[in-house]
Amino acid sequence: MTLFITFEGPEGSGKSTVMQAIAERLNQPLITTREPGGIRISEAIRELLLSDDNLMDARTEALLFAASRRQHLVERVLPALEEGKLVLCDRFIDSSLAYQGYARGLGADAIMDINRFAIEEHMPDLTLYLKVAPEIGLSRINDNARATNRLDKESLAFHQLVCEGYDYLAEQYDRIVTIDAARPIADVIESAYQVILDKMK
Amino acid sequence: MTLFITFEGPEGSGKSTVMQAIAERLNQPLITTREPGGIRISEAIRELLLSDDNLMDARTEALLFAASRRQHLVERVLPALEEGKLVLCDRFIDSSLAYQGYARGLGADAIMDINRFAIEEHMPDLTLYLKVAPEIGLSRINDNARATNRLDKESLAFHQLVCEGYDYLAEQYDRIVTIDAARPIADVIESAYQVILDKMK
Repeated sequence: MTLFITFEGPEGSGKSTVMQAIAERLNQPLITTREPGGIRISEAIRELLLSDDNLMDARTEALLFAASRRQHLVERVLPALEEGKLVLCDRFIDSSLAYQGYARGLGADAIMDINRFAIEEHMPDLTLYLKVAPEIGLSRINDNARATNRLDKESLAFHQLVCEGYDYLAEQYDRIVTIDAARPIADVIESAYQVILDKMK
Repeated sequence: MTLFITFEGPEGSGKSTVMQAIAERLNQPLITTREPGGIRISEAIRELLLSDDNLMDARTEALLFAASRRQHLVERVLPALEEGKLVLCDRFIDSSLAYQGYARGLGADAIMDINRFAIEEHMPDLTLYLKVAPEIGLSRINDNARATNRLDKESLAFHQLVCEGYDYLAEQYDRIVTIDAARPIADVIESAYQVILDKMK
C-alpha cells in the first residue's frame, strides 16, 4: 500500500529521529525525505531562505517555501508514490500553515491558497503531529548543539504561536494525528509506529 | 500625482525603449524599474528562473515569479510611491497572467490568486499593453542580436498564446490600455505618452 505520510511539529520535537526509526522498522519499499531533499532548484531556494543576511518579506518567504515544495513534490515525492513506495516526509504543508499562516500572521487561508496551487490534489494521507511545548523543544535543540539557523533563532513567543497553530490544524483536519512528544523518544516512536500501522490496515 | 504604471507586451514589443523615452519626457519625480530591479533576493530568484539547465515545473516557475515580484514591490516600488514618485515598471502581474496563466495553461484565475497574495492591494493604476504580432516581436529580437534567454527561445506557438492572453486581459481590465506597437517606435512612444498624460489629468 502506498501512502504519503508527513511528520510535523515545532523545532526539537524529534521529527527526523522518529521518522528514521520508523523507516527502519517498516518492512516495505519506502523513501524518507524532507524539503529540499537534494532537488537542485529547491536547494537553491533553501539557501536563500536560511541565509541570515536577507531582509525577506514574510510573503516572499511563504511563496519561496511553496515553490520549493512544488519542485520537491514533482521530482521526489510523486515519482516514489508512482513506484508504489511509501513516502515519509519531514515537514510539508502544515509547516507553512503553522509558521507563515499563524506565527507570522499571514493567515492560514491565504497560505493554504498558495500551497494548494503548489501541491494541487496531493495532500498527505496521514500527518503525525509531534506535540511538545516550545520550551522543551528549544532546550533540546540547544542541548544538541545542532547548528541553528535563522528560523530557530526566532523568539520563544514566536514558537509558542507555531505550537498554537499546529494545535488548531490538528483540530481541523482528520488526517492529522497528535502524538505526545514530551515523552521519552522510544515511546514517541512506538506511538507513531502504531498510528502508521493502523492507517495501513 | 503619484501613479503606478506598468508596461506589458510580448518579447520585442519595445516596452523598455518606450518606457525610457517616456521617463525622459515626463517632468516630475519618477523611477523606472523592472523585476528584479537590483533587489538582491529577486536577482537570486531571476538567476534560477533564467538558467538554461533547470528542469523547472511550470507551477514552481509561477511561484518564483510571484516571490520575486513581492520582494521587488516591497523594496523598490512601494518606497518610491510613498516618496510621491511616479513608478514606471517594465512587466508586472499581467506578464504572469499571460505567460504562466494562458501560454503555459495554468489558468489565469490560479495565477491571479498567487499574485494577489504577492501584491495585495497594490495593483497598477494604469497598464500600457504594447500590442505586436509575435512574428514581428521575435524578428525584432533576432535583428537586435540581444542575448536571448530561456523564455525567448520558446516556440512561436507559445508566443502566439502569450499575445492571445494579453488581448484577453486587455478586454477584461479597464486599467489596461492597448497601444498598436507594430508602428514606428516614435509613434508608439507618442501614443503611450498621451495615454499617461490623460491619466494624470
